[in-house]
Amino acid sequence: MVDVKLPFDKQKIVEITKEHPTPFHIYDEKGLRENARRFKEAFSILPGFKEYFAVKACPNPFLLKILKEEGFGTDCSSLPELMLSEKVGIVGEDIMMSSNDTPAEEFVKCKELGGIINLDDISHIDFLEKAAGLPEMICFRYNPGPAKKGNDIIGDPKEAKYGFTKEQMIEGYKILKEKGVKRFGMHTMMVSNELEVRGLVETARLMFELALEVKEKAGIEVEFINLGGGIGTPQMPDQPHTMPYEDIARDMKKVYEIVFAGEMQPKVYLECGRTITGPFGWLITKVRHLKKTYKDYVGTDACMANLMRPALYGAYHHLVVLGKENDDLSHKYDVTGSLCENNDKFAIDRMFPEIEVGDLLVIYNAGAHGHAMGFNYNGKLRSAEILLREDGSVLQIRRAETVDDYFATLDFDKLGEFNGQEK
Amino acid sequence: MVDVKLPFDKQKIVEITKEHPTPFHIYDEKGLRENARRFKEAFSILPGFKEYFAVKACPNPFLLKILKEEGFGTDCSSLPELMLSEKVGIVGEDIMMSSNDTPAEEFVKCKELGGIINLDDISHIDFLEKAAGLPEMICFRYNPGPAKKGNDIIGDPKEAKYGFTKEQMIEGYKILKEKGVKRFGMHTMMVSNELEVRGLVETARLMFELALEVKEKAGIEVEFINLGGGIGTPQMPDQPHTMPYEDIARDMKKVYEIVFAGEMQPKVYLECGRTITGPFGWLITKVRHLKKTYKDYVGTDACMANLMRPALYGAYHHLVVLGKENDDLSHKYDVTGSLCENNDKFAIDRMFPEIEVGDLLVIYNAGAHGHAMGFNYNGKLRSAEILLREDGSVLQIRRAETVDDYFATLDFDKLGEFNGQEK
Repeated sequence: MVDVKLPFDKQKIVEITKEHPTPFHIYDEKGLRENARRFKEAFSILPGFKEYFAVKACPNPFLLKILKEEGFGTDCSSLPELMLSEKVGIVGEDIMMSSNDTPAEEFVKCKELGGIINLDDISHIDFLEKAAGLPEMICFRYNPGPAKKGNDIIGDPKEAKYGFTKEQMIEGYKILKEKGVKRFGMHTMMVSNELEVRGLVETARLMFELALEVKEKAGIEVEFINLGGGIGTPQMPDQPHTMPYEDIARDMKKVYEIVFAGEMQPKVYLECGRTITGPFGWLITKVRHLKKTYKDYVGTDACMANLMRPALYGAYHHLVVLGKENDDLSHKYDVTGSLCENNDKFAIDRMFPEIEVGDLLVIYNAGAHGHAMGFNYNGKLRSAEILLREDGSVLQIRRAETVDDYFATLDFDKLGEFNGQEK
Repeated sequence: MVDVKLPFDKQKIVEITKEHPTPFHIYDEKGLRENARRFKEAFSILPGFKEYFAVKACPNPFLLKILKEEGFGTDCSSLPELMLSEKVGIVGEDIMMSSNDTPAEEFVKCKELGGIINLDDISHIDFLEKAAGLPEMICFRYNPGPAKKGNDIIGDPKEAKYGFTKEQMIEGYKILKEKGVKRFGMHTMMVSNELEVRGLVETARLMFELALEVKEKAGIEVEFINLGGGIGTPQMPDQPHTMPYEDIARDMKKVYEIVFAGEMQPKVYLECGRTITGPFGWLITKVRHLKKTYKDYVGTDACMANLMRPALYGAYHHLVVLGKENDDLSHKYDVTGSLCENNDKFAIDRMFPEIEVGDLLVIYNAGAHGHAMGFNYNGKLRSAEILLREDGSVLQIRRAETVDDYFATLDFDKLGEFNGQEK
């Protein structure tokens, strides 16, 4: 028996499936808002705190609009993400653009929107100047290299393609100062899906100390320090949905006060994605087939096209059978998708109640890097996204793909005229 | 110095980029046809040989039309792939549908097209009968389980979600016979990207022996045996582009004659994908940035959205700098994409000539599971596909995605009316 904490029950989902066939992603507005408020309140003990939501985690403009109402900005990594932010009305310094290997048009668009440009490399100073002219404020992304160990997901920082070395940071700020730039920021992203408070706080310490060193060596004061994202989400349903934001914020504030000791007062930003939307989105899928060969398989109507993390990273996603939440976990199954890839499985050798064809399954923590990472491999179509509103009503916030979408980049008239040897 | 065997040179690609901006996939019609003919000729020593091209490897209808002209059918794994086959004019028994966890509408569509339905599970006999009625011919997919070891890519067969056990095969054919089905087939897919002749031939032996056992125990003779795909493509440019088809076919024929000894004469089918189009497609990308931090990085205008295999499987893809094919390999680089994922790299610690911004790079073996596996993560748009025709002319066979495509499933009018707390 697990504490499922779902904002819906079987009856509600059955009702929704009458209009919206499975599979679909469903998001809980109430949970999302409460979490956003708690997150903001916790970190607001840090000077000038602002969260820039990592759009890549869940690029749905309806959800972005909710987060805008809760006071969040956007962290964008491409032109389409900048355009999405603009469509929601998040513009100006509520946008931060953290990309790498960036094309000119993205710098141009970000500058046009008045967003904060976070440069990934010292050579991008010249590139940006030529592409768009230098804006009033510029931020640099820091890569600590051997000074910091990564975790399994993000890998070893010195193998990471992102960011400036410390020497490049100092040199870069000097160059900006000479070129007349007046306002400066500093950014890093050292962890991903981190579940230890200490790891997050250590990143903060390293960045705060760097800000002082930059002040001393480059003669500039950064206006803000963006500590990146990386706050993980616990996987098991009997754990809290989210990390103890309050503890992280309190420890970061202590470190802030110790390191800066009044000498500087930069604002502190975050750009979390996963912890904001991840636990408040679920993938709903229906059991299509049961199969017994060398193992027992549950075949669902979803697949890697809807949620790739189990196949790509071996990520654990909790999964319950709606209406059987309290039944004994008496049967061992592999829960699979329908893609012709053997790693297209949502659960391997996991215990469940006895599952029947037609059962509705809920896959947890699918609100980030879920729909966003979907592909069309095997001709699979990406699913709809549904918002469960605070008043209990249901709003489709993205329609499912159709075969016409899948064929959109093909010209069948041209195909009709096309022949090779037969001409 | 490597033997690049490219059907184009730098000048040709520079010319193409004037109309078609990088990145794009380019396919060589001449190489594709020659390979298809050689493949067909080699395996035609086997009775009734037919190749069903695995559409999932490269679902472009222009390439399917070329392969149709060369006498190939299609192996489809979903409704959109069946529709693609139909649009090219590949119908009837030139279609084989090998899917798993199959929805009813795919069975209905395949039967409507007269395609050969390859069932993945014994329970699908009833499912198919209810969904579409039983067709005149039915094929079963075999999973040998512990009887056969897999390779690293396809994994352990007894952990594989696909296929029937031997006992289920025998029982299943008996059921079909009772239900009045008259024609039978047998299928397997035990290897993926296999580079040893022996592994492929052993799969054939196992299937031929199974056909005899089925004849004896279920009292039916299969009309064909589909040995699946799995013929790998050598990675290095100084290796032959493709496996020795002639050797594989000759050894399969020997085994066929020994095992069957005139007692049965089933047709032999294959459903290869990778070896048919893989080596005849390349990803062309331009160098956008050079970066030196703890390592030297080459930033390209392509990313995982164009070719996911290096990030997903750690696959090696050979890569050359156009116009510098004969230069000394004097510099070590990581060649990266622009996605905010650290594993978005096409090459790691690999030696190249000195690379400059604007250089054109050719990534080899991108003609299968390349464009097909592309996603839109980070708001990345999938690229165009270009065909280099036998007469040297250039035809766009798929346009690049636009931001409008990316936004197609969103309703921005509805977004305008949408508000939460602000209402």
